[in-house]
Amino acid sequence: MAGTVRPGGRTARVRAAVLEATQDELVERGFHGLSMDQVAARAGVGKTTVYRRWGSPAGLVADLMTELAEQSSPHADTGSVEGDLRANAVGVLAAVTDPRLGATFQAVIAAATCDDDAAGALHAFYGRRVREWAKAVDLAVKRGELPAGTDGEEVIRAVSAPLYYRLLVTREPVDAAVAERAALRTLAAARAGAFVTGALPSGSGPEGAAADGAGQADQR
Amino acid sequence: MAGTVRPGGRTARVRAAVLEATQDELVERGFHGLSMDQVAARAGVGKTTVYRRWGSPAGLVADLMTELAEQSSPHADTGSVEGDLRANAVGVLAAVTDPRLGATFQAVIAAATCDDDAAGALHAFYGRRVREWAKAVDLAVKRGELPAGTDGEEVIRAVSAPLYYRLLVTREPVDAAVAERAALRTLAAARAGAFVTGALPSGSGPEGAAADGAGQADQR
Repeated sequence: MAGTVRPGGRTARVRAAVLEATQDELVERGFHGLSMDQVAARAGVGKTTVYRRWGSPAGLVADLMTELAEQSSPHADTGSVEGDLRANAVGVLAAVTDPRLGATFQAVIAAATCDDDAAGALHAFYGRRVREWAKAVDLAVKRGELPAGTDGEEVIRAVSAPLYYRLLVTREPVDAAVAERAALRTLAAARAGAFVTGALPSGSGPEGAAADGAGQADQR
Repeated sequence: MAGTVRPGGRTARVRAAVLEATQDELVERGFHGLSMDQVAARAGVGKTTVYRRWGSPAGLVADLMTELAEQSSPHADTGSVEGDLRANAVGVLAAVTDPRLGATFQAVIAAATCDDDAAGALHAFYGRRVREWAKAVDLAVKRGELPAGTDGEEVIRAVSAPLYYRLLVTREPVDAAVAERAALRTLAAARAGAFVTGALPSGSGPEGAAADGAGQADQR
Protein backbone atom coordinates (compact mmCIF):
# COMPACT_ATOMS: atom_id res chain seq x y z
CA MET A 1 0.00 0.00 0.00
CA ALA A 2 2.67 2.48 1.03
CA GLY A 3 4.21 2.21 -2.43
CA THR A 4 1.12 3.68 -4.05
CA VAL A 5 0.93 6.72 -1.77
CA ARG A 6 1.94 10.08 -3.21
CA PRO A 7 2.38 12.51 -0.29
CA GLY A 8 -0.57 14.86 -0.34
CA GLY A 9 -2.23 12.87 -3.11
CA ARG A 10 -5.74 11.45 -3.04
CA THR A 11 -4.52 8.03 -1.85
CA ALA A 12 -2.73 9.62 1.08
CA ARG A 13 -5.75 11.76 1.96
CA VAL A 14 -8.05 8.74 1.90
CA ARG A 15 -5.67 6.78 4.10
CA ALA A 16 -5.38 9.66 6.59
CA ALA A 17 -9.17 10.00 6.80
CA VAL A 18 -9.71 6.26 7.18
CA LEU A 19 -7.04 5.87 9.87
CA GLU A 20 -8.41 8.84 11.81
CA ALA A 21 -11.91 7.34 11.64
CA THR A 22 -10.50 3.96 12.69
CA GLN A 23 -8.88 5.53 15.74
CA ASP A 24 -12.07 7.45 16.60
CA GLU A 25 -14.10 4.25 16.44
CA LEU A 26 -11.54 2.26 18.45
CA VAL A 27 -11.56 4.90 21.19
CA GLU A 28 -15.37 5.06 21.30
CA ARG A 29 -16.33 1.42 20.74
CA GLY A 30 -13.24 -0.76 21.15
CA PHE A 31 -12.06 -3.37 18.68
CA HIS A 32 -15.19 -5.50 19.01
CA GLY A 33 -17.28 -2.50 17.96
CA LEU A 34 -15.05 -1.62 14.98
CA SER A 35 -17.09 -1.85 11.79
CA MET A 36 -15.71 -1.35 8.27
CA ASP A 37 -18.97 0.28 7.17
CA GLN A 38 -18.95 2.71 10.08
CA VAL A 39 -15.30 3.62 9.46
CA ALA A 40 -16.08 4.26 5.78
CA ALA A 41 -19.05 6.45 6.68
CA ARG A 42 -17.11 8.39 9.29
CA ALA A 43 -14.19 8.93 6.91
CA GLY A 44 -16.50 9.95 4.06
CA VAL A 45 -14.97 7.23 1.89
CA GLY A 46 -16.74 4.54 -0.13
CA LYS A 47 -17.19 1.17 1.57
CA THR A 48 -15.70 -0.61 -1.44
CA THR A 49 -12.46 1.33 -1.09
CA VAL A 50 -12.17 0.48 2.60
CA TYR A 51 -12.92 -3.23 2.07
CA ARG A 52 -10.59 -3.48 -0.92
CA ARG A 53 -7.68 -1.65 0.62
CA TRP A 54 -7.78 -2.79 4.29
CA GLY A 55 -9.73 -6.05 4.06
CA SER A 56 -10.81 -6.35 7.72
CA PRO A 57 -11.00 -4.46 11.01
CA ALA A 58 -7.65 -6.04 11.94
CA GLY A 59 -6.20 -4.69 8.69
CA LEU A 60 -7.32 -1.19 9.68
CA VAL A 61 -5.75 -1.59 13.11
CA ALA A 62 -2.48 -2.87 11.66
CA ASP A 63 -2.22 0.11 9.31
CA LEU A 64 -3.09 2.51 12.16
CA MET A 65 -0.29 1.04 14.27
CA THR A 66 2.13 1.42 11.35
CA GLU A 67 1.14 5.07 11.06
CA LEU A 68 1.51 5.65 14.82
CA ALA A 69 4.96 4.06 14.72
CA GLU A 70 5.96 6.31 11.84
CA GLN A 71 4.74 9.39 13.68
CA SER A 72 6.53 8.58 16.93
CA SER A 73 9.68 10.43 17.84
CA PRO A 74 13.25 9.09 17.85
CA HIS A 75 14.96 8.12 21.12
CA ALA A 76 16.07 10.82 23.52
CA ASP A 77 19.73 11.81 23.60
CA THR A 78 20.15 13.82 26.79
CA GLY A 79 23.79 12.86 27.22
CA SER A 80 23.19 10.54 30.20
CA VAL A 81 21.54 7.16 30.44
CA GLU A 82 19.54 8.33 33.45
CA GLY A 83 18.14 11.23 31.45
CA ASP A 84 17.34 9.02 28.50
CA LEU A 85 15.62 6.29 30.55
CA ARG A 86 13.61 8.90 32.45
CA ALA A 87 12.60 10.44 29.12
CA ASN A 88 11.56 7.02 27.87
CA ALA A 89 9.42 6.39 30.95
CA VAL A 90 7.86 9.86 30.72
CA GLY A 91 7.08 9.21 27.05
CA VAL A 92 5.41 5.89 27.81
CA LEU A 93 3.44 7.55 30.62
CA ALA A 94 2.32 10.35 28.31
CA ALA A 95 1.22 7.86 25.65
CA VAL A 96 -0.75 5.53 27.92
CA THR A 97 -2.43 8.36 29.82
CA ASP A 98 -3.33 10.36 26.71
CA PRO A 99 -7.11 10.00 26.37
CA ARG A 100 -7.02 9.22 22.66
CA LEU A 101 -3.70 7.39 22.30
CA GLY A 102 -4.04 5.47 25.57
CA ALA A 103 -7.52 4.26 24.65
CA THR A 104 -6.22 3.23 21.24
CA PHE A 105 -3.44 1.12 22.74
CA GLN A 106 -5.82 -0.48 25.23
CA ALA A 107 -8.26 -1.37 22.45
CA VAL A 108 -5.52 -2.93 20.33
CA ILE A 109 -4.03 -4.78 23.31
CA ALA A 110 -7.49 -6.19 24.09
CA ALA A 111 -7.98 -7.16 20.44
CA ALA A 112 -4.62 -8.92 20.38
CA THR A 113 -5.75 -11.38 23.04
CA CYS A 114 -8.13 -12.91 20.50
CA ASP A 115 -6.95 -11.76 17.06
CA ASP A 116 -3.62 -12.79 15.57
CA ASP A 117 -3.47 -9.88 13.13
CA ALA A 118 -3.96 -7.35 15.90
CA ALA A 119 -1.28 -9.19 17.90
CA GLY A 120 1.07 -8.95 14.91
CA ALA A 121 0.43 -5.22 14.61
CA LEU A 122 1.22 -4.70 18.29
CA HIS A 123 4.34 -6.84 18.03
CA ALA A 124 5.60 -4.78 15.09
CA PHE A 125 4.78 -1.45 16.76
CA TYR A 126 6.51 -2.19 20.05
CA GLY A 127 9.41 -4.00 18.39
CA ARG A 128 10.12 -0.84 16.44
CA ARG A 129 9.90 1.38 19.53
CA VAL A 130 12.09 -0.94 21.59
CA ARG A 131 14.76 -1.07 18.86
CA GLU A 132 14.70 2.71 18.48
CA TRP A 133 15.17 3.39 22.21
CA ALA A 134 17.75 0.61 22.64
CA LYS A 135 20.11 2.86 20.68
CA ALA A 136 20.16 5.24 23.67
CA VAL A 137 21.32 2.36 25.88
CA ASP A 138 23.97 1.40 23.33
CA LEU A 139 25.26 4.98 23.45
CA ALA A 140 25.43 4.75 27.25
CA VAL A 141 27.50 1.58 26.97
CA LYS A 142 29.86 3.38 24.56
CA ARG A 143 30.17 6.28 27.02
CA GLY A 144 31.07 3.77 29.74
CA GLU A 145 27.93 4.46 31.80
CA LEU A 146 26.75 0.84 31.64
CA PRO A 147 28.69 -2.44 31.45
CA ALA A 148 29.76 -3.74 28.05
CA GLY A 149 27.32 -6.34 26.73
CA THR A 150 24.26 -4.67 28.28
CA ASP A 151 21.18 -5.73 26.30
CA GLY A 152 19.63 -2.41 25.31
CA GLU A 153 16.32 -3.84 24.14
CA GLU A 154 15.83 -5.63 27.44
CA VAL A 155 16.62 -2.44 29.36
CA ILE A 156 13.97 -0.57 27.39
CA ARG A 157 11.41 -3.33 27.89
CA ALA A 158 12.13 -3.23 31.63
CA VAL A 159 11.43 0.50 31.83
CA SER A 160 8.02 0.13 30.14
CA ALA A 161 6.91 -3.10 31.77
CA PRO A 162 5.87 -1.80 35.22
CA LEU A 163 3.71 0.93 33.66
CA TYR A 164 1.80 -1.46 31.42
CA TYR A 165 1.55 -4.03 34.22
CA ARG A 166 -0.21 -1.54 36.47
CA LEU A 167 -2.32 -0.16 33.65
CA LEU A 168 -3.54 -3.47 32.24
CA VAL A 169 -3.12 -6.16 34.86
CA THR A 170 -3.31 -4.84 38.41
CA ARG A 171 -5.36 -1.81 37.25
CA GLU A 172 -3.44 0.48 39.60
CA PRO A 173 -2.71 4.17 39.00
CA VAL A 174 0.16 5.07 36.67
CA ASP A 175 1.73 8.46 37.33
CA ALA A 176 5.01 10.34 37.15
CA ALA A 177 6.31 8.68 40.32
CA VAL A 178 5.63 5.21 38.90
CA ALA A 179 7.41 6.16 35.68
CA GLU A 180 10.41 7.57 37.53
CA ARG A 181 10.75 4.50 39.71
CA ALA A 182 10.57 2.23 36.67
CA ALA A 183 13.43 4.13 35.02
CA LEU A 184 15.64 4.33 38.11
CA ARG A 185 15.12 0.74 39.25
CA THR A 186 15.97 -0.50 35.77
CA LEU A 187 19.05 1.71 35.81
CA ALA A 188 20.13 0.27 39.17
CA ALA A 189 19.85 -3.28 37.82
CA ALA A 190 21.64 -2.32 34.60
CA ARG A 191 24.52 -0.68 36.51
CA ALA A 192 24.81 -3.87 38.58
CA GLY A 193 25.30 -5.80 35.33
CA ALA A 194 21.97 -7.63 35.47
CA PHE A 195 21.21 -6.78 31.83
CA VAL A 196 24.52 -8.05 30.45
CA THR A 197 23.76 -10.82 27.96
CA GLY A 198 24.48 -14.20 29.48
CA ALA A 199 25.42 -12.67 32.83
CA LEU A 200 22.68 -14.25 34.88
CA PRO A 201 23.30 -17.58 36.56
CA SER A 202 21.46 -20.42 34.92
CA GLY A 203 20.55 -23.97 35.76
CA SER A 204 19.62 -23.35 39.36
CA GLY A 205 15.94 -22.51 38.96
CA PRO A 206 13.50 -24.17 41.34
CA GLU A 207 12.19 -26.40 38.56
CA GLY A 208 15.58 -26.97 36.92
CA ALA A 209 13.90 -25.59 33.79
CA ALA A 210 15.15 -22.05 34.06
CA ALA A 211 18.46 -23.04 32.49
CA ASP A 212 16.92 -23.47 29.04
CA GLY A 213 18.28 -20.73 26.87
CA ALA A 214 19.08 -18.40 29.74
CA GLY A 215 22.77 -18.30 28.90
CA GLN A 216 22.47 -18.56 25.14
CA ALA A 217 19.65 -16.19 24.28
CA ASP A 218 20.21 -12.89 22.52
CA GLN A 219 23.84 -13.40 21.63
CA ARG A 220 23.95 -10.55 19.20
CA MET B 1 -23.31 -14.72 48.45
CA ALA B 2 -20.45 -16.40 50.28
CA GLY B 3 -22.42 -16.20 53.53
CA THR B 4 -25.11 -18.51 52.17
CA VAL B 5 -22.73 -21.26 51.02
CA ARG B 6 -22.63 -24.45 53.05
CA PRO B 7 -19.51 -26.39 51.99
CA GLY B 8 -20.65 -29.29 49.86
CA GLY B 9 -24.22 -28.02 49.90
CA ARG B 10 -26.40 -27.33 46.87
CA THR B 11 -25.45 -23.65 46.79
CA ALA B 12 -21.76 -24.51 46.68
CA ARG B 13 -22.31 -27.13 43.96
CA VAL B 14 -24.27 -24.67 41.82
CA ARG B 15 -21.56 -22.04 42.25
CA ALA B 16 -18.81 -24.52 41.32
CA ALA B 17 -20.70 -25.61 38.18
CA VAL B 18 -21.45 -22.04 37.14
CA LEU B 19 -17.88 -20.85 37.66
CA GLU B 20 -16.47 -23.81 35.73
CA ALA B 21 -18.88 -23.08 32.87
CA THR B 22 -17.92 -19.39 33.03
CA GLN B 23 -14.26 -20.28 32.70
CA ASP B 24 -14.97 -22.70 29.82
CA GLU B 25 -16.89 -20.01 27.97
CA LEU B 26 -14.23 -17.35 28.61
CA VAL B 27 -11.52 -19.64 27.27
CA GLU B 28 -13.53 -20.57 24.17
CA ARG B 29 -15.25 -17.27 23.35
CA GLY B 30 -13.62 -14.49 25.36
CA PHE B 31 -15.47 -11.95 27.48
CA HIS B 32 -17.39 -10.49 24.55
CA GLY B 33 -18.81 -13.93 23.83
CA LEU B 34 -19.77 -14.62 27.43
CA SER B 35 -23.55 -15.14 27.67
CA MET B 36 -25.48 -15.70 30.89
CA ASP B 37 -27.87 -18.07 29.10
CA GLN B 38 -25.03 -20.14 27.66
CA VAL B 39 -23.30 -20.35 31.05
CA ALA B 40 -26.56 -21.50 32.64
CA ALA B 41 -27.08 -24.15 29.96
CA ARG B 42 -23.49 -25.38 30.18
CA ALA B 43 -23.65 -25.56 33.98
CA GLY B 44 -27.03 -27.30 33.92
CA VAL B 45 -28.47 -24.58 36.14
CA GLY B 46 -31.64 -22.52 35.64
CA LYS B 47 -31.19 -19.14 33.93
CA THR B 48 -33.13 -17.42 36.70
CA THR B 49 -30.64 -18.63 39.29
CA VAL B 50 -27.68 -17.36 37.27
CA TYR B 51 -29.26 -13.95 36.61
CA ARG B 52 -30.41 -13.55 40.20
CA ARG B 53 -27.15 -14.60 41.82
CA TRP B 54 -24.52 -13.13 39.44
CA GLY B 55 -26.45 -10.37 37.67
CA SER B 56 -24.19 -9.92 34.64
CA PRO B 57 -21.26 -11.47 32.75
CA ALA B 58 -18.95 -9.16 34.72
CA GLY B 59 -20.48 -10.50 37.93
CA LEU B 60 -19.61 -14.04 36.82
CA VAL B 61 -16.04 -12.99 36.02
CA ALA B 62 -15.64 -11.22 39.36
CA ASP B 63 -16.78 -14.32 41.26
CA LEU B 64 -14.50 -16.54 39.14
CA MET B 65 -11.51 -14.32 39.99
CA THR B 66 -12.43 -14.50 43.69
CA GLU B 67 -12.49 -18.29 43.45
CA LEU B 68 -9.14 -18.40 41.59
CA ALA B 69 -7.59 -16.15 44.25
CA GLU B 70 -8.90 -18.45 46.99
CA GLN B 71 -7.48 -21.51 45.23
CA SER B 72 -4.04 -20.01 44.68
CA SER B 73 -1.16 -21.09 46.87
CA PRO B 74 0.58 -19.06 49.58
CA HIS B 75 3.96 -17.43 48.93
CA ALA B 76 7.07 -19.59 48.66
CA ASP B 77 9.38 -19.82 51.66
CA THR B 78 12.59 -21.36 50.34
CA GLY B 79 14.80 -19.64 52.91
CA SER B 80 16.36 -17.19 50.45
CA VAL B 81 14.96 -14.20 48.62
CA GLU B 82 16.49 -15.44 45.38
CA GLY B 83 14.69 -18.76 45.71
CA ASP B 84 11.42 -17.07 46.58
CA LEU B 85 11.55 -14.54 43.72
CA ARG B 86 12.47 -17.31 41.25
CA ALA B 87 9.55 -19.36 42.57
CA ASN B 88 7.27 -16.35 42.11
CA ALA B 89 8.40 -15.85 38.52
CA VAL B 90 8.05 -19.57 37.76
CA GLY B 91 4.54 -19.50 39.22
CA VAL B 92 3.54 -16.51 37.10
CA LEU B 93 5.01 -18.23 34.04
CA ALA B 94 3.09 -21.43 34.78
CA ALA B 95 -0.16 -19.49 35.20
CA VAL B 96 0.10 -17.39 32.07
CA THR B 97 1.25 -20.28 29.88
CA ASP B 98 -1.36 -22.73 31.19
CA PRO B 99 -3.84 -23.19 28.33
CA ARG B 100 -6.92 -22.79 30.51
CA LEU B 101 -5.70 -20.38 33.18
CA GLY B 102 -3.66 -18.23 30.78
CA ALA B 103 -6.60 -17.85 28.41
CA THR B 104 -8.81 -16.94 31.36
CA PHE B 105 -6.47 -14.17 32.48
CA GLN B 106 -6.13 -12.82 28.93
CA ALA B 107 -9.91 -12.76 28.54
CA VAL B 108 -10.39 -10.90 31.81
CA ILE B 109 -7.54 -8.49 31.07
CA ALA B 110 -9.13 -7.74 27.69
CA ALA B 111 -12.54 -7.28 29.34
CA ALA B 112 -11.05 -4.89 31.90
CA THR B 113 -10.05 -2.45 29.15
CA CYS B 114 -13.73 -1.69 28.58
CA ASP B 115 -15.60 -2.95 31.67
CA ASP B 116 -15.12 -1.41 35.11
CA ASP B 117 -16.43 -4.45 36.97
CA ALA B 118 -13.96 -6.74 35.20
CA ALA B 119 -11.23 -4.20 35.99
CA GLY B 120 -12.25 -4.26 39.64
CA ALA B 121 -12.11 -8.05 39.70
CA LEU B 122 -8.59 -8.02 38.23
CA HIS B 123 -7.47 -5.33 40.66
CA ALA B 124 -8.72 -7.38 43.61
CA PHE B 125 -7.17 -10.63 42.34
CA TYR B 126 -3.70 -9.22 41.71
CA GLY B 127 -3.76 -7.03 44.81
CA ARG B 128 -4.31 -10.16 46.87
CA ARG B 129 -1.51 -12.07 45.10
CA VAL B 130 0.92 -9.14 45.41
CA ARG B 131 0.19 -8.75 49.14
CA GLU B 132 0.62 -12.49 49.71
CA TRP B 133 4.02 -12.67 47.96
CA ALA B 134 5.24 -9.39 49.48
CA LYS B 135 5.45 -11.32 52.76
CA ALA B 136 8.36 -13.30 51.29
CA VAL B 137 10.21 -10.04 50.63
CA ASP B 138 9.44 -8.83 54.15
CA LEU B 139 11.00 -12.05 55.50
CA ALA B 140 14.10 -11.40 53.36
CA VAL B 141 14.40 -7.92 54.87
CA LYS B 142 14.15 -9.45 58.36
CA ARG B 143 16.88 -11.95 57.45
CA GLY B 144 19.07 -9.06 56.31
CA GLU B 145 19.08 -10.14 52.65
CA LEU B 146 17.57 -6.88 51.43
CA PRO B 147 17.85 -3.32 52.77
CA ALA B 148 15.46 -2.17 55.49
CA GLY B 149 12.52 -0.27 54.03
CA THR B 150 12.37 -2.37 50.84
CA ASP B 151 8.84 -2.16 49.42
CA GLY B 152 7.84 -5.81 49.12
CA GLU B 153 4.76 -5.20 47.01
CA GLU B 154 6.76 -3.21 44.49
CA VAL B 155 9.40 -5.97 44.31
CA ILE B 156 6.70 -8.54 43.55
CA ARG B 157 5.10 -6.31 40.91
CA ALA B 158 8.54 -5.86 39.30
CA VAL B 159 9.06 -9.64 39.01
CA SER B 160 5.71 -10.13 37.24
CA ALA B 161 5.74 -7.04 35.04
CA PRO B 162 8.19 -8.16 32.31
CA LEU B 163 6.28 -11.40 31.78
CA TYR B 164 2.92 -9.69 31.32
CA TYR B 165 4.50 -6.95 29.21
CA ARG B 166 5.82 -9.50 26.72
CA LEU B 167 2.66 -11.56 26.83
CA LEU B 168 0.17 -8.73 26.35
CA VAL B 169 1.96 -5.76 24.85
CA THR B 170 4.96 -6.72 22.75
CA ARG B 171 3.50 -10.20 22.10
CA GLU B 172 6.93 -11.81 22.50
CA PRO B 173 7.60 -15.31 23.83
CA VAL B 174 7.52 -15.85 27.58
CA ASP B 175 9.61 -18.76 28.81
CA ALA B 176 11.70 -19.95 31.73
CA ALA B 177 14.64 -17.74 30.75
CA VAL B 178 12.42 -14.65 30.70
CA ALA B 179 11.03 -15.56 34.11
CA GLU B 180 14.48 -16.14 35.56
CA ARG B 181 15.80 -12.84 34.24
CA ALA B 182 12.79 -10.98 35.65
CA ALA B 183 13.46 -12.44 39.10
CA LEU B 184 17.22 -11.86 39.08
CA ARG B 185 17.12 -8.34 37.62
CA THR B 186 14.56 -7.33 40.22
CA LEU B 187 16.77 -8.86 42.89
CA ALA B 188 19.78 -6.88 41.63
CA ALA B 189 17.82 -3.62 41.83
CA ALA B 190 16.44 -4.53 45.27
CA ARG B 191 19.92 -5.35 46.62
CA ALA B 192 21.09 -1.97 45.30
CA GLY B 193 18.38 -0.31 47.41
CA ALA B 194 16.24 0.80 44.48
CA PHE B 195 13.07 -0.56 46.11
CA VAL B 196 13.57 1.20 49.44
CA THR B 197 10.57 3.47 50.02
CA GLY B 198 11.47 7.06 49.33
CA ALA B 199 15.03 6.14 48.30
CA LEU B 200 14.79 7.33 44.73
CA PRO B 201 15.76 10.88 43.89
CA SER B 202 12.83 13.09 43.09
CA GLY B 203 12.21 16.43 41.51
CA SER B 204 14.70 16.05 38.70
CA GLY B 205 12.51 14.44 36.07
CA PRO B 206 12.69 15.79 32.54
CA GLU B 207 9.28 17.42 32.93
CA GLY B 208 9.82 18.51 36.51
CA ALA B 209 6.66 16.51 37.22
CA ALA B 210 8.31 13.37 38.51
CA ALA B 211 8.64 14.91 41.95
CA ASP B 212 4.93 14.60 42.68
CA GLY B 213 4.60 11.98 45.34
CA ALA B 214 7.81 10.18 44.47
CA GLY B 215 9.26 10.75 47.91
CA GLN B 216 6.04 10.55 49.89
CA ALA B 217 4.29 7.56 48.37
CA ASP B 218 3.86 4.29 50.22
CA GLN B 219 5.18 5.44 53.56
CA ARG B 220 4.02 2.38 55.41
